[in-house]
Amino acid sequence: MIRREEVKSRLVLNPALATRALTGFITDAIETAGATGVVLGLSGGVDSALAAALAVAGLGADRVHTFLLPYRTSNPDSAEDAELVAAHFGLHLRTIDITPMIDAYFAVEPDATAVRRGNKMARERMAILFDQAKQLGALVLGTSNKTEILLGYSTIFGDNASSLNPLGDLYKQQVWELSRHVGVPSQVIDKKPSADLWPGQTDEGDFGFDYATADEVLYLIFDQGLTAEEVVARGYPEEVVLRITRLERNNRFKRRLMLIARLSGSAVNLDREIPRD
Amino acid sequence: MIRREEVKSRLVLNPALATRALTGFITDAIETAGATGVVLGLSGGVDSALAAALAVAGLGADRVHTFLLPYRTSNPDSAEDAELVAAHFGLHLRTIDITPMIDAYFAVEPDATAVRRGNKMARERMAILFDQAKQLGALVLGTSNKTEILLGYSTIFGDNASSLNPLGDLYKQQVWELSRHVGVPSQVIDKKPSADLWPGQTDEGDFGFDYATADEVLYLIFDQGLTAEEVVARGYPEEVVLRITRLERNNRFKRRLMLIARLSGSAVNLDREIPRD
Repeated sequence: MIRREEVKSRLVLNPALATRALTGFITDAIETAGATGVVLGLSGGVDSALAAALAVAGLGADRVHTFLLPYRTSNPDSAEDAELVAAHFGLHLRTIDITPMIDAYFAVEPDATAVRRGNKMARERMAILFDQAKQLGALVLGTSNKTEILLGYSTIFGDNASSLNPLGDLYKQQVWELSRHVGVPSQVIDKKPSADLWPGQTDEGDFGFDYATADEVLYLIFDQGLTAEEVVARGYPEEVVLRITRLERNNRFKRRLMLIARLSGSAVNLDREIPRD
Repeated sequence: MIRREEVKSRLVLNPALATRALTGFITDAIETAGATGVVLGLSGGVDSALAAALAVAGLGADRVHTFLLPYRTSNPDSAEDAELVAAHFGLHLRTIDITPMIDAYFAVEPDATAVRRGNKMARERMAILFDQAKQLGALVLGTSNKTEILLGYSTIFGDNASSLNPLGDLYKQQVWELSRHVGVPSQVIDKKPSADLWPGQTDEGDFGFDYATADEVLYLIFDQGLTAEEVVARGYPEEVVLRITRLERNNRFKRRLMLIARLSGSAVNLDREIPRD
């Protein structure tokens, strides 16, 4: 059985090989779909920066259309970092302010919580990216990493929705490692990850644990099939392990399109699982 | 091999059995998720009326929250029919006008086509239903039928997105049959199906073929595994069969969440298919 000391080294990538595989994934998908290129939102964070870099490597900068979609409370530093990334990779960045659309809805829901507002913003951004993709004959490039996906740290049919996602099998530390390899500006790699859905938000603050721990625990549970007890026995804090296990279980519904009732022997998706496990 | 004369009878349901299975599907899913009930949009059409009826049968009317989400160009008859359905099944219907949100976006995209506008409306409705579901502790009930899903006659991450969908294994004619059985008002069952995304739109006008033909051809191709040639050999018009076959192939990407690149032996979804086949 795997020892704790080995886990970190298991998460180390071969960055050249991974880059080649992921740019090939993007190129293949675009060619097969007959699409002109990709559309993606730059948040100023490392995930979208890496996705952009991989797309540029596979398609060339003129086939990669980036968008900055701020809300009035978005951190201005995020916009600056998005502009830095776009300039660094020679990308055209178009800004569309989502404030009017979001405020128009919450005018009839004035008491909505920050979480509801954040979800609505994530879905507005998805809808805009798909609309722009339609106009350009392009596909929407997803930017969710494996840690986020497994923890369910995303809005279903919002930031978790795309046409193709090159980062979905990379844990957060692997995103950082690969970002260094492809030359994402270090200012973007080194800053604290944040969904920037409200001022001062950080991912690790929301979680109550850090990404290094999350990646290792998720690797042991999801990739290696260990139980929570087996992970705790390797020296990880029990409270954190149980919290991660619970998040992974409770958010599985976000990893599928939806449940479809089955009546015939040939339903469109052949399962009848339960939505939140 | 199945003969053409048999196809129609193969599509006839046992309505009592189907109703029991589908209400059970809804009840199971809601209980398992620990949700308070369901949220759904009533369009005035037969699909959402049937979904509402099944939800009422499974959960009772007080756990079924319906919404009418019109745009300024929506047909007023649709609203009237939605109100009729709500009144008939004793449901509370809340209206939220999506015009301000949609117009706020298209102010920066004034030349957008009707299709782009329709897609944006479908995604706005999805976002509102998920927001209301969050507030109510409920799940979003989908209303896409099997014919629509297989033809790709939907907006990805718009009307095709839900938490659970009781109609996804029912062809359109089966929707009509079951709707009669559960007592959907005949005015709603008998009218021409329309997505009502622009004035005068009808599904069959968009398709260029009728639902009866679509259901039979899709049943032969999808459920029975026949080739296009084998379907044509049974007397269906070649042009229609080829058009249906092409739609089914080109829209497969709408039946999965997205493509995720695979690097490890344990990617979050274990496939690396091509997005538009």
